[in-house]
Amino acid sequence: MGEPYYKYHVFFCTNERDDGSACCANHDARVVRDYAKAKIKELAISGKGSVRINLAGCLDRCDEGPVLVIYPEGTWYTYVDQEDIDEIIESHIKKGIKVERLLI
Amino acid sequence: MGEPYYKYHVFFCTNERDDGSACCANHDARVVRDYAKAKIKELAISGKGSVRINLAGCLDRCDEGPVLVIYPEGTWYTYVDQEDIDEIIESHIKKGIKVERLLI
Repeated sequence: MGEPYYKYHVFFCTNERDDGSACCANHDARVVRDYAKAKIKELAISGKGSVRINLAGCLDRCDEGPVLVIYPEGTWYTYVDQEDIDEIIESHIKKGIKVERLLI
Repeated sequence: MGEPYYKYHVFFCTNERDDGSACCANHDARVVRDYAKAKIKELAISGKGSVRINLAGCLDRCDEGPVLVIYPEGTWYTYVDQEDIDEIIESHIKKGIKVERLLI
């Protein structure tokens, strides 16, 4: 398959079950995701061969949430606020260094 | 990180841009995804260590759509109907054999 289509394909759990009910506390996943997406765009590292930020449905790890997963490597993070997202982008995505304290 | 949380984490592109507009023809991604999800449940291969089916936003490969991606391996497929989904489940997910004709 060669190089992955996206080097970092990030999926934010929206914390919503199929029936629309919350599967854990509402953590404003959409707001944080929009923030991440804007930042990646600002850094000009979005698109093929680079970074893609997506919202997914419920990733079913609610008890550890809010969560996001970075594929293809399969790294799972939790986060509290935008500062955590900043750290994931600055360390993991820009330098390839995992943010240990946020790993789940 | 050890074994991936999900052996096969499948994301269906919903073919919707952030503003809600269609980014390609409406391919009933939700219907097909619901079908896949029900089938995985019926086969009792859903959950941790096994298979998870999610809907994502636009995966931004619309010109090749409708598409789905299977992580962590990063295999991208297009599909036309439920028969294609059956083949992906039977071959790729159950036997680990890629469906060459549907690869993108």
